[in-house]
This record gives sequence, structure tokens and C-alpha cells, in this order.
Amino acid sequence: MKMLSIRSVGLSLSLEKGLPLGSGLGSSAASAAAAAVAVNELFGRKLEVKDLVLAGLESEAKVSGYHADNIAPAIMGGFVLIRSYDPLELMSLQFPVEKDLIFVLVSPDFEAPTKKMRAALPAEIGMSHHVWNCSQAGALVASVLQGDLVGLGKALSSDKIVEPKRAPLIPGMEAVKKAALQAGAFGCTISGAGPTAVAVVDSEGRGVEVGERMVEAFWKEGNLKAVAMVRRLDRVGARLVGSVPR
Amino acid sequence: MKMLSIRSVGLSLSLEKGLPLGSGLGSSAASAAAAAVAVNELFGRKLEVKDLVLAGLESEAKVSGYHADNIAPAIMGGFVLIRSYDPLELMSLQFPVEKDLIFVLVSPDFEAPTKKMRAALPAEIGMSHHVWNCSQAGALVASVLQGDLVGLGKALSSDKIVEPKRAPLIPGMEAVKKAALQAGAFGCTISGAGPTAVAVVDSEGRGVEVGERMVEAFWKEGNLKAVAMVRRLDRVGARLVGSVPR
Repeated sequence: MKMLSIRSVGLSLSLEKGLPLGSGLGSSAASAAAAAVAVNELFGRKLEVKDLVLAGLESEAKVSGYHADNIAPAIMGGFVLIRSYDPLELMSLQFPVEKDLIFVLVSPDFEAPTKKMRAALPAEIGMSHHVWNCSQAGALVASVLQGDLVGLGKALSSDKIVEPKRAPLIPGMEAVKKAALQAGAFGCTISGAGPTAVAVVDSEGRGVEVGERMVEAFWKEGNLKAVAMVRRLDRVGARLVGSVPR
Repeated sequence: MKMLSIRSVGLSLSLEKGLPLGSGLGSSAASAAAAAVAVNELFGRKLEVKDLVLAGLESEAKVSGYHADNIAPAIMGGFVLIRSYDPLELMSLQFPVEKDLIFVLVSPDFEAPTKKMRAALPAEIGMSHHVWNCSQAGALVASVLQGDLVGLGKALSSDKIVEPKRAPLIPGMEAVKKAALQAGAFGCTISGAGPTAVAVVDSEGRGVEVGERMVEAFWKEGNLKAVAMVRRLDRVGARLVGSVPR
């Protein structure tokens, strides 16, 4: 509202949230995105997408740190590469419209210890791992732009820096990844800081099957109940879906 | 020749080399690429591109270490992303055919101390620099595929890990980079381990101008004589340009 130069109005928002909290799915960013877009719509849609991301960033900073990993794609849709923060530079990476991309999101009933998850990240990274992960980042970008699901899945599964440190902290995660790949997923990794596991497939039917195998693996190997969601890539981002006339 | 299953033939190659040695332009790979392609042509062109790269890699291993940074694009042309070595996985990144990409290569008369250049690389990299360089790698790949020269130049100029360590070892390099950008180059960095500086522009005319400014800067700030070359992106790689009938 400050960005809209509106100072004299009180505003109450009620939020219906379709995401579990603390799951690694970026649910705080989803709320921030919804609020930013809703307020902008209410007051004449004067802000551009980038301003909405900046507004959302302020809100994210208070909840989960100043980073646009979740808020940028939540507002812009699709894949977003964050090029720099100062100034904020975002690149939309368009996944070809004629191709389907389906995510399988499996959230176990487990509170990922955020502090432990953060502490698990190494402060320093060896040169060979750095070069490897840079290559995978490049391959991920190329695969997204070219709609190459095999390449995308492989890049997603190839992290040598973060995933190997965090996966052991989530009971069953390694088995879940194996189960997803065996069931035909193109790739699988931890979503955000976890505990949700994310896999990519090319059809909803395959997604349901992969999800079942992943839920089983969480139960068998991690002794955790888990819930699977199968979701298509959203290319639009947060938007007004309806409004009640005054 | 081993890969072609040819064991009983002696072969003598004579090489006309158009590149300075030890310049950071990958001249050893250029020789290896020429040899691999020439031998393959002589013996019935039985090897595929990937085999030629593998053959070239063996030769590179003896001269400058087992890496495909130079040999892969020398054989394949264009931009190549090395995804992994074991097994060797290469991704060709096609720069849009309708766009022009020109490199300005300025080689100073200076022997870059290879050992010092290698020792200048940090063994460990801080997380924030790692994330930054990964972003730039992703942005570089996206810019190549989209033919975005501004983005490509910016990514090229944004290395926070290697260039800041090596540039101070090449007299005048920092001034050369500034001069290139001021003269309208989209980006500028060290080519390979140096001492050559490489800048990108979109026309040969601009390239000549940028090259002159860079040569001046090497002289004024580094007290080094330098030679500029202006070259268009080669999209084909090493090939037979003619043969003498037997």
C-alpha cells in the first residue's frame, strides 16, 4: 500500500490457504503473493509485476529471509531465474506452451527442524562441487527453455551441495527419491528446505502412480505418514479469480 | 586412430596454426580438434562427433589437463555446456542463427604464469559467491539460447570467483575491461586462464573500435603491446576445408 501511495485506508484480508505450513512449498510466499496481487487489484492495478515482487519480498523478509526464490515465481508464474538483488533482476524462463509439466509433491507429517536444515548448508564449497552445480544450473535452464523433461529431471536430481546434506535429516527421503525414479519420474529432490519431496513427470496419471510409490516409501523407510499432490506447472502466477460487486 | 581400429599406419601431420600459444584461447585444443577431424576424414569418417571429442580429450589431458572446455566447442562449434564427464555428456546450446555474435580477442605480449594462474583459483568458495555464479551461469545459458547479447555480456562480466583473482595478475586487465565496456562492448572478461581479454559485440565495425580501445588500455595501463582479432562465432567447428587428390 505504501508503494501505491495509499496511507489512509485500513484493510483486512482473510486468507484461505491451500498449502501446508512449513512444508518447503513456499507457503509464506504464496500468502504474500495473494495479498500483494489482491491489494493491487483493489486499488486500480497500478503496480507492475516487478513492484509486486518487491512488495512481496518485504513481507518474505520478515517471515523467511530476504529472498525471491518463492515470491517471484508465485507472482510471475512459471520458472524465474533471479539474476541479482541489487538491483532486482528477474528472468522469466518460458517452458514451451505445447508441453506438459507435472509436479508430484509429497509432504510427510514431519516438522523439518529449520535451524538444523539451515545449519546443514556448508559455508564453503569445494571448487569441483561448485563447477558441477553450476553446470547443472546451466543444464536446468537450457532444459526448461527447450522443454526437455529428461534433462530437467536429471538436473533436478544432480545437486551435490545441498541435497546430500539435507536429505539425511528427513527420514526416508533417500528411499523416496529412489522410489520416484523407479516409478518413472524424470527427477526428484527436496522442495525448498523440505520436508516435501518433489518429482517431475509428464502426465497426471503417471504423477498419481509416482505419488503413491513416494508415500509408501516415506511410510516404509521413514515411518512417516505423507500426502501426495499432483499439480500442473502454473504459467500465470497469482491472479484475481473473482470479485464480489460492491 | 585406436578408436578407428587402425594400428598399422604411420601418420605425419603438419599443422598451420593461426593462434598464438599460451594465450588462453585454447590453442592446444584447436590443434587436437584439427588432428582428430583430419584423421577421421582420412580413414572414412567413421567416428561420431562425441568420439572425436573423446579422442581430443585424451590429447588435451597430456597438454593441459583432462577438460573439455576447449576441445568440445572446437569440434562441435558454437556454445557447448559440459554436463558431466563420467559419462561424457555435452549439450549444444544454439545461438539463434539470425543473430550475429562477434568476439573481440586482445592478446597482450605477456606470458601468463600458468602456475600462478592456477594457484590463484580458490580451493573453497563461499556460499553467496557460489549462488551468485550459479545464477550467472544460468543467465548465460538463457541468453545464449535466446540470442540476448545484453544478457550474455552481463553474465560474462559478472564472475565473482575466478576473474577477480586472475585479473590482477595480468597487467592492465582491469583497465582493458573498463575500456571495452566504455567503447560499447556488451561484456568483457579473461579468455580461459588469460592473458587474452575477450569482449562481445554485435558488429565487426564495433569490434574493430572496441579492439583498438582495449589495445590502448593494455599499453597505457599495463605497459604491454597487444594484438586485437575480431572474429564471428563459429557454429560448425573443425571441418575439412579442402583435400589434395592422391
